[in-house]
Amino acid sequence: MKLTILGCNAASPAYGRHPTAQILEIDGELFLIDCGEGTQMRMQDFNIKSARINNVFISHMHGDHYFGLIGWLNSQSLFGRTRKLHIYCPEKLKAIVEIQLDYKLSYEIVYTFLQEAEETKIYDGEKITVSSFAVKHSIPTWGFKFLKKNRKRVLIPEKIRALEIPKYYYSKLCDGINYTFADGREINYEEVTAPGKPNLTYVYSADTIFDEALAKIAANANCLYHEATYLDAQLDKATARFHSTARQAATIAKLANTKLLIIGHYSSKYINADAHLEEAKCIFANVKCAVEGESYCID
Amino acid sequence: MKLTILGCNAASPAYGRHPTAQILEIDGELFLIDCGEGTQMRMQDFNIKSARINNVFISHMHGDHYFGLIGWLNSQSLFGRTRKLHIYCPEKLKAIVEIQLDYKLSYEIVYTFLQEAEETKIYDGEKITVSSFAVKHSIPTWGFKFLKKNRKRVLIPEKIRALEIPKYYYSKLCDGINYTFADGREINYEEVTAPGKPNLTYVYSADTIFDEALAKIAANANCLYHEATYLDAQLDKATARFHSTARQAATIAKLANTKLLIIGHYSSKYINADAHLEEAKCIFANVKCAVEGESYCID
Repeated sequence: MKLTILGCNAASPAYGRHPTAQILEIDGELFLIDCGEGTQMRMQDFNIKSARINNVFISHMHGDHYFGLIGWLNSQSLFGRTRKLHIYCPEKLKAIVEIQLDYKLSYEIVYTFLQEAEETKIYDGEKITVSSFAVKHSIPTWGFKFLKKNRKRVLIPEKIRALEIPKYYYSKLCDGINYTFADGREINYEEVTAPGKPNLTYVYSADTIFDEALAKIAANANCLYHEATYLDAQLDKATARFHSTARQAATIAKLANTKLLIIGHYSSKYINADAHLEEAKCIFANVKCAVEGESYCID
Repeated sequence: MKLTILGCNAASPAYGRHPTAQILEIDGELFLIDCGEGTQMRMQDFNIKSARINNVFISHMHGDHYFGLIGWLNSQSLFGRTRKLHIYCPEKLKAIVEIQLDYKLSYEIVYTFLQEAEETKIYDGEKITVSSFAVKHSIPTWGFKFLKKNRKRVLIPEKIRALEIPKYYYSKLCDGINYTFADGREINYEEVTAPGKPNLTYVYSADTIFDEALAKIAANANCLYHEATYLDAQLDKATARFHSTARQAATIAKLANTKLLIIGHYSSKYINADAHLEEAKCIFANVKCAVEGESYCID
């Protein structure tokens, strides 16, 4: 998994930072998470092959998370896209798109509306699943959990050497399929293979007030992206606006025992995120501040 | 008058160029003309004090001319704007804004819908008027003519010296008011003043097919901004899509006898506008290619 930050500012653009958008790449497939104004320009700046995006996730209907969608959708049609596009979003987004793109696009949009508060599977691919879960913000808002299933097991060399299983069957054993010799003798895949890499999890918790329930959802995640709109000195403001501070984001990561924490969604009042990093590091060591154009390996 | 280009590309962003937007500054007042996606970022990049914009003109409902409006309107509210904002636009824009900004903004928006095909005064200030006029494009589209009235006359030094008119009255004479001495003798302002600078006119003709009627509207304008989406080698495409070529833009400027022609709205197929400039220069000498971030003095 590779996460590329396209925008990491809150509300309005400031100091060269842009509203929220990010690309999660899993096995060459691109998932677009939120789409603030200017996202299509950022994709060009950072060489994102946006035609490879087939699934878009919009967390909530604050403009800094979706104002860029309409332009990108329109451009995809101008570029002649034919592949279906899936959008997972609050129901209201559909009318906003349709009132503007009331002409025939070159491709079809399929909407899945976010409705359930509980963790709910909304995308179920062969190797990848995505769940949505409601978070606590000033309007209905959802976070997303991306899970890459690593079902592939690995061969145990000394065991495999001792048997005369044909090489072409090795891959099937790794997929968990038993082998049967001509004489009927069966080799259980578990005898000759070991579990492969563990699953990978990325949790994007969108805009949210500090909420310990998030730690459960993000438990042991390989990476959590948690907003840190403010520093703890502005805790009152953060709470009043249903946002979090850098310290609070780090607290969730610590409670969840995530491997990596990325913070972002900085308020325009901050020239840079140096103080955010310092504050978060006091609570949780493996934290990074989102930087636009940077990619983060999740493993 | 000073014109600053914020975006000069057609349809989608390309090669670092952005969709259409420009700022016309007249005596410190800023007029925003079209507002493609990312306009608020360009304003920040080029130090445009966007709180000083009280009037916005949207030529038509193709997204590359208005997708950036919603973000800028929203940011103005976040920044606490209280001054009324006037938007001159096709009627459809209002519903698109209202479905998205359905919460209370910190300021009021007043809409004036563009409806008349003929040249129609839509803004009537003390020194500045703006007229709209329909142009020929694939959907209803309007251009705008900005007129700065220079009513102020200038004193004729030798004549003014010969009379004993008190200095405090000089400004009134320039405003066209006669002076009357204590003995009842009246001095006509025309005796001691000459006409001041002529009016200044800027014509923005939006997206349009080649149309000689435009030359009449732009007659003797100080500056005409005419789209040149294509080069003449793509004349068929230009015509089919209701756009113009660089040669056609220059032809209108020549017919209109404008002082300056600025071309822009380049198709994404062109890496730069060098060939546009060359093509236009063959027809009309005083032509400039729009460059984002550049300002053009209109006098």
